Amino acid sequence: MKKAVVLVIDGVGDLPTPKTPLQAAKKPNLDQLAAEGITGLLSTVGRGVVPGSDTSHLRIFGYEPKICYPGRGPLEALGIGIDLHEGDVAFRANFATINDGVVVDRRAGRIDTATASALSTLVPNSIEDVEIIFKNSVEHRGALVLRGSGLSRCVSETDPHAKEKMPLCEPEDDSPEAEKTARIINKFTEFVYAALSKAPENKKREAKGLPPANVLLLRGPGMFSSVPSITERFDIKGACIAGGALYRGVAKFIGMDIFLAPGATGDRHTDLKAKGNAAVKALETYDLVFVHVKGCDSFGHDGDFNGKTKMIERIDKELIPILMKTGACIVVTGDHSTPCSRKEHSGHEVPILLFAKDERSDKVKKFDEISCMEGGLGHITGKHVMPIILNTMEKAKKYGS
Amino acid sequence: MKKAVVLVIDGVGDLPTPKTPLQAAKKPNLDQLAAEGITGLLSTVGRGVVPGSDTSHLRIFGYEPKICYPGRGPLEALGIGIDLHEGDVAFRANFATINDGVVVDRRAGRIDTATASALSTLVPNSIEDVEIIFKNSVEHRGALVLRGSGLSRCVSETDPHAKEKMPLCEPEDDSPEAEKTARIINKFTEFVYAALSKAPENKKREAKGLPPANVLLLRGPGMFSSVPSITERFDIKGACIAGGALYRGVAKFIGMDIFLAPGATGDRHTDLKAKGNAAVKALETYDLVFVHVKGCDSFGHDGDFNGKTKMIERIDKELIPILMKTGACIVVTGDHSTPCSRKEHSGHEVPILLFAKDERSDKVKKFDEISCMEGGLGHITGKHVMPIILNTMEKAKKYGS
Repeated sequence: MKKAVVLVIDGVGDLPTPKTPLQAAKKPNLDQLAAEGITGLLSTVGRGVVPGSDTSHLRIFGYEPKICYPGRGPLEALGIGIDLHEGDVAFRANFATINDGVVVDRRAGRIDTATASALSTLVPNSIEDVEIIFKNSVEHRGALVLRGSGLSRCVSETDPHAKEKMPLCEPEDDSPEAEKTARIINKFTEFVYAALSKAPENKKREAKGLPPANVLLLRGPGMFSSVPSITERFDIKGACIAGGALYRGVAKFIGMDIFLAPGATGDRHTDLKAKGNAAVKALETYDLVFVHVKGCDSFGHDGDFNGKTKMIERIDKELIPILMKTGACIVVTGDHSTPCSRKEHSGHEVPILLFAKDERSDKVKKFDEISCMEGGLGHITGKHVMPIILNTMEKAKKYGS
Repeated sequence: MKKAVVLVIDGVGDLPTPKTPLQAAKKPNLDQLAAEGITGLLSTVGRGVVPGSDTSHLRIFGYEPKICYPGRGPLEALGIGIDLHEGDVAFRANFATINDGVVVDRRAGRIDTATASALSTLVPNSIEDVEIIFKNSVEHRGALVLRGSGLSRCVSETDPHAKEKMPLCEPEDDSPEAEKTARIINKFTEFVYAALSKAPENKKREAKGLPPANVLLLRGPGMFSSVPSITERFDIKGACIAGGALYRGVAKFIGMDIFLAPGATGDRHTDLKAKGNAAVKALETYDLVFVHVKGCDSFGHDGDFNGKTKMIERIDKELIPILMKTGACIVVTGDHSTPCSRKEHSGHEVPILLFAKDERSDKVKKFDEISCMEGGLGHITGKHVMPIILNTMEKAKKYGS
């Protein structure tokens, strides 16, 4: 069996103005992999479909989101290290500032992590018969989990996503479970507001003229239900190297272990060499190593063509050479396009390359959206990725006899 | 309507070392068909999926194995000329040698066909209320059919596939049908061992120091359930020219008639001109003629690059020119790749070419895995093959009005 590294460059695909960032970037190593390997274009979810980062990653690793997508909340909760049980309802949570019921700062002035940790101790541990688990992660971010019987994911968010009145949580169907969950959340919000408003940390912030973190806004409700792991399904051990909580969460959800890389922050300043070295280490004991790099997506959302181009050049210079020395099969692709001109995800295909010793090669010499149109893999969708990787790893099971 | 020949070169796909056998072979006729026809890459079962020979052939001819695959046993039984009834449970069977319950020779010294035929008369015709049908084919090979009520395919094999203790047949679910089937098989094994052990043919073999064929090992259990024939589905009459039992079995299963070609042995020494001539004959009365050539797969399993290359050259020289003279549409493809470097089936695509007068052509000039990446058919899967052939034959039915 061969081992494999799957590098997902988040949001790497783009539109030509007149070149795409991948076309504009100097990236001799990626181009060498493209020239010696086989390439194509990938629609993670489906042709023309605009993928979220969660659904696209699930699809790349062989999971059909239509069947198993638990919602964003559970994935974020898993990603920040909360262990979930069957039936847990989870939300993404933000410390925020409200005034007279109106959200005046959705991030509570990007509250520092230490203060958020101190405030977290004031969050209740239970409401009615439901256990409450809250964990903060970086700055204002965190996740909330409700654990107990008779809960539902069919409730509304309490994050207005704008400077508006903070809404009540409403049941989204007629079930008693949704009604109960909404009631618990509204009691939770009331309790948290009361507790945080009088917290000494917030008094100090107000004295400094900083917005108090006096509420938790909730979004992305979902219910956790476990899926068969990649080990059960494909007989491989997987490791994930990612800074962002969501990517770690997807990895944990499908049974990968999380490998920490110091300095791999999940933002545009991430230490790419540290990620590469962590991949080398992970390959010692794992069969498939998923490396995630976020920066290109962030630059795409900012409409920053030069930033995205330079991020690609940095990946090519700092990360790819380390992966090339491992001798593992190398897959490089994106989860979706985030064109700088749109500042949003789009449904345009992303290039994909597969390099492995003694595998087929095509005539494509460059790794970009246009060159890979002629690639020997053709146009594939997310569901094809794992079978192709497993076949390359010589781990695919025969169907029939 | 046009007629069509579909040539399946078993296991023809390969990996570059640095050329593939198809790239290395001198094959002017196949290349001429590629140049004048249209080409592409085919994944019979699905991208990256490693196909068995049974599932891949079903898929090529328009049958979804997930729905109708009866297991290998019934296809082998059909292929050696046993007529099956609905609900029959069938196994592949091997004459073998056991000693103290341990399999010491899985093929009973590759017992000759005449001796196997003599021993076959000692196999019981019924056990309990179940009719037993056994037929030997070539050397140690054969098939066993159980016919009666209350049977199941969910039982284990009695072939240990190694020099190990011959296992009992076990039910693989809790049903009374599986329990009954396992019981019948175990009684069968006991009866056969008792009868064969004292057979004069085996006494003679033992006297000569040859291993006695004192047991029948069973594998590939399946239950026969008929499917609509290609004639019912596509309004065409099909004929099969194949040496191997499995391929004849698949053909019979889907309603093709078996056409015999003297000297077409199903192995690497098969008489390819005889197959070509049989195809010419079959085209007089049939619309679609399936020609199967096994050799390349066998060379792939042996890791014999030169043997595989020469087999392709022999097909090109001895078989293709005969097919080219027929005026029929010609389809050439493989059922799967069997890379010499892996000595096993793999999930890599196989090239496919379609040549017919006045049809579209692409710019591909050679029939191989790399050239056909640029083919005008693109990347297709097994389910696309029959619609494309039927369209070329002008036999496709309009969908809608």
